[in-house]
Amino acid sequence: MNAVEQSVRASNGTCEAGPAELAEPPRARRSIEARLIERLLSHLGNPPIEFLLWNGERVSSSGAAMAHQLRIADRATLFTLFTDSQLGFGDAYSEGRISVEGDLVDFLETVYKSAPRKEASPSLLRRLVNRRRAPRANTLTGSRDNIHRHYDIGNDFYSLWLGRTMSYTCAYYPTAPTTLDEAQVAKMHHVCRKVQLQPGQSVVEAGCGWGSLGLHMARHYGVKVRAFNISHEQIVYARERAQAEGLSSQVEYVEDDYRNISGRYDAFVSVGMLEHVGLENYPDLGRIVNRCLPRHGRGLIHSIGRNYPAPLHAWIERRIFPGAYAPSIAEMMQIFEPWDLSVLDVENLRLHYARTLRHWLERYEAASERVKSMFDEKFVRMWRLYLAGSVAAFTMGTLQLFQVVFAPRDNNEIPLTRAHLYQG
Amino acid sequence: MNAVEQSVRASNGTCEAGPAELAEPPRARRSIEARLIERLLSHLGNPPIEFLLWNGERVSSSGAAMAHQLRIADRATLFTLFTDSQLGFGDAYSEGRISVEGDLVDFLETVYKSAPRKEASPSLLRRLVNRRRAPRANTLTGSRDNIHRHYDIGNDFYSLWLGRTMSYTCAYYPTAPTTLDEAQVAKMHHVCRKVQLQPGQSVVEAGCGWGSLGLHMARHYGVKVRAFNISHEQIVYARERAQAEGLSSQVEYVEDDYRNISGRYDAFVSVGMLEHVGLENYPDLGRIVNRCLPRHGRGLIHSIGRNYPAPLHAWIERRIFPGAYAPSIAEMMQIFEPWDLSVLDVENLRLHYARTLRHWLERYEAASERVKSMFDEKFVRMWRLYLAGSVAAFTMGTLQLFQVVFAPRDNNEIPLTRAHLYQG
Repeated sequence: MNAVEQSVRASNGTCEAGPAELAEPPRARRSIEARLIERLLSHLGNPPIEFLLWNGERVSSSGAAMAHQLRIADRATLFTLFTDSQLGFGDAYSEGRISVEGDLVDFLETVYKSAPRKEASPSLLRRLVNRRRAPRANTLTGSRDNIHRHYDIGNDFYSLWLGRTMSYTCAYYPTAPTTLDEAQVAKMHHVCRKVQLQPGQSVVEAGCGWGSLGLHMARHYGVKVRAFNISHEQIVYARERAQAEGLSSQVEYVEDDYRNISGRYDAFVSVGMLEHVGLENYPDLGRIVNRCLPRHGRGLIHSIGRNYPAPLHAWIERRIFPGAYAPSIAEMMQIFEPWDLSVLDVENLRLHYARTLRHWLERYEAASERVKSMFDEKFVRMWRLYLAGSVAAFTMGTLQLFQVVFAPRDNNEIPLTRAHLYQG
Repeated sequence: MNAVEQSVRASNGTCEAGPAELAEPPRARRSIEARLIERLLSHLGNPPIEFLLWNGERVSSSGAAMAHQLRIADRATLFTLFTDSQLGFGDAYSEGRISVEGDLVDFLETVYKSAPRKEASPSLLRRLVNRRRAPRANTLTGSRDNIHRHYDIGNDFYSLWLGRTMSYTCAYYPTAPTTLDEAQVAKMHHVCRKVQLQPGQSVVEAGCGWGSLGLHMARHYGVKVRAFNISHEQIVYARERAQAEGLSSQVEYVEDDYRNISGRYDAFVSVGMLEHVGLENYPDLGRIVNRCLPRHGRGLIHSIGRNYPAPLHAWIERRIFPGAYAPSIAEMMQIFEPWDLSVLDVENLRLHYARTLRHWLERYEAASERVKSMFDEKFVRMWRLYLAGSVAAFTMGTLQLFQVVFAPRDNNEIPLTRAHLYQG
């Protein structure tokens, strides 16, 4: 233990001060970095983590050595954590200026676990910060740009870790040992049962990813599907898949914005698009949904969510998902309430997303050399942090996953119970 | 058909005017009452109903005779429908100045069915009207008075039609032929499964009615229950029941307001109390819930609700349930969001409440002579209208029934799926 460590440890957890400490107050001997880190740790709820600095100095809130360690390459990196902690951490991790000793998910969960509980009424400062962090606009062209930046980075890349179905949304694990591919198929059945698809019916899908749900609905439920997406790469992939599987006449993939959906359908489904719609467009999405559905119609919207309104993690919104936002349930209701749509069922699948993401992360790590050859080391680290951080966020409950089933107010053909979701 | 009828009918649905009408314009021959009623019908979305006036005049929007008829005793009664339609109708029906020919539920459903769809953005006038119609305050003393006026009118009266369980909330019908008593027991099991009760655990119940759920939980799930209620009559009844069933040591009935709940419990349940809490008190209810629950805790709130914020029917709020309000889901979230409580499950049991109310109404009608001897004819008609109107409101989707399951953010002991609700 070096002198700096001694001083750092002496400054904490000492209930009774001995003569040595009285003669030589410990605060005076701590570095400015140590004192700043302690303030940061205190702000984070004093998680049991330890900072390992470039000069050999070690800092933790209790002064004790910790299992979870964060290695900081230089002073400038440390200081970015104080100026913009979320963005600073993410960028520095991506560039290797920050590294984590041991398991990244464990480390992040440890940090999340200590986080102070939500302020019941956020301070004015917090509200101003949140306002400043409004996501990028989701106008027609803004959305196209935002979506292009995430979903068009390469189907080959995504196929390395999304599994056979190429579903890039929360899977559904009927039992714990379910595999990723099984859970993605189970999710699609769960969605189809929730909207009670019957052979010969029509479905419109808003945001179809690589097209797996549309194909699943056509194959297993005998419905006709029109699926909208503004990611060019995904649409091309989905069309090829429909062709290869002989389902082109049943599933039409439309490269267009959900705002241009027209026509009437027995069911509306949207799995993992709402995160990209933007809060300001929710009533408009509701208008489109309402226009689509006849009296006997029903719909499902599946989205990442929150327990209360809060901006997405700044680094995720800036570097991974431009324009994205995870709404609270009350915010989601801005889709339905203006149009008198009845919410029939809300299911929170948070722990399913934690599992899905763990499965993705395992596959991603197994393919990391391939990812590095396709992009570079920074990209590998960036996506590792995004996936690991998401596992931690869903495990610790800072993110939720809501599936909302709804119908026009006077649809009385809805099933009496949800038992049909759990049969067979 | 008399002359008045002829003139009323001639004024409608005539695309081509013949020489007689040109010579003698029909508008001039219609009574002022007929013209006012037509405006009222138009405002209601032109439901296929017919007004039968005191003077023999008959008025409908199409001019044709209708299966659903409303008999109006005098001009003053008719005019109250224009000055305050909800209160005016309810009071006049109760006093027999308005009567309905044929089935009352059918009549009310017909009216609800025609109602114009919700305005996406209510007009300023509508918002002012809604504001004026804020329910009575639910302060500690206000609540006690409001509850007393409904729930303390006599256990003998309620026992005539609530069935064996004395549950005065929406039942749960696993299949259509379930009886009322079976459905009330099924509802209690459904609630207990949703909050995953385990033997030896503790439950706090906010608003316990005549105590049936507390006894059910103790008997079938081996838990200890503290149940709060401010209705004196109900508490006395519940305590006697616990005594008679040998469950007094397991279920404690506390005559006190939910705001005075203290202690920690494994589960919080509240079935049919939220309607009496008042929107302004939701964050405070959330504070109490949050204080009650340890990390592994979970809760359930069961309430009548709405697809969008709107005051309760004015007559119901004034004459039947003083201070009551049925929230939208977004409004209910004001309980949970300030405290970072995770909503795990929302189930809409609207059609179950329509069935429950039909069962209550049947029993009520069968006992109407008894009710008349306990009260008077006006009371009989008043409660008939309340029950029939509620059947119609739940059938037509102007009211909803939400069961919301929730837990502290970091409770990871929640079940992976809801399959356990549908086993056995």
